[in-house]
Amino acid sequence: MESEYALSLIFRRARKEDVPAIVAMLADDQLGAEREGDPADERYLAAFERIDANPYDELIVAERDGKVVGTMQLTYLAGLSRLGAERCLIEAVRVAASTRGQGLGREMIQWAIDRARARGCAMVQLTSDKSRKDAHRFYDSLGFAASHEGYKLKLG
Amino acid sequence: MESEYALSLIFRRARKEDVPAIVAMLADDQLGAEREGDPADERYLAAFERIDANPYDELIVAERDGKVVGTMQLTYLAGLSRLGAERCLIEAVRVAASTRGQGLGREMIQWAIDRARARGCAMVQLTSDKSRKDAHRFYDSLGFAASHEGYKLKLG
Repeated sequence: MESEYALSLIFRRARKEDVPAIVAMLADDQLGAEREGDPADERYLAAFERIDANPYDELIVAERDGKVVGTMQLTYLAGLSRLGAERCLIEAVRVAASTRGQGLGREMIQWAIDRARARGCAMVQLTSDKSRKDAHRFYDSLGFAASHEGYKLKLG
Repeated sequence: MESEYALSLIFRRARKEDVPAIVAMLADDQLGAEREGDPADERYLAAFERIDANPYDELIVAERDGKVVGTMQLTYLAGLSRLGAERCLIEAVRVAASTRGQGLGREMIQWAIDRARARGCAMVQLTSDKSRKDAHRFYDSLGFAASHEGYKLKLG
């Protein structure tokens, strides 16, 4: 039984007290390191409150043995296109360094796809930095099509 | 004065009665034609109501001489990344066929950028189908970087 417990993995909405662990995962990344700050910065908490209060936003954590080991944000986008179809946008996907290479990312994205489908979304969409070649093979293998150019314009 | 009036261009939030004109623009497009339906379909109106009620969503129309000649949707995305920065997502950009080649698209996107900046967004982002080469030159010229792969997974 203990080994079964050791393998326990749950996905749930993030709580306020998960914010530092999530920020640590965002920062523990080649691209993320330079753009994140102190996990205790109150701006992270303000952003969490905004996400948590929005019925179309879900900040998700993967928890294994009581420890947060992954995160992603799902946003359900309304639009007139495709007969008013809702789409699911996935952002800020991260797996804790200690847990990489164990298939957690795949379980997370598959869970998000299933959730979007159950909700009636017509599409799941995401963008991935062009330098993240491993991520691209990963999304290709999950059936995603790299059909679009992802444009960003930094302000300020 | 009349010529000035003839050049009047305003950007405003879409109203319920604009929905058929917006859907017509979405459909009047190489890629859009096959995925849209009757502008009177009640699913379009339901999607409009959902967008209109969401404080983080703005369905915008460009109006010239009282006629809707362009549309785009702005969504203000919350996230923990980048110190909890808000980002502006642009989707469903269309210019009426009768008005193409007159610089309206540029005015629309510049307006969206200014609006996102005034709001304090750290970034404007969008995806564009890889077949839309003219659109890519257009976004490049506006300072956007095609830094990401845009992945889509159709459900259903």
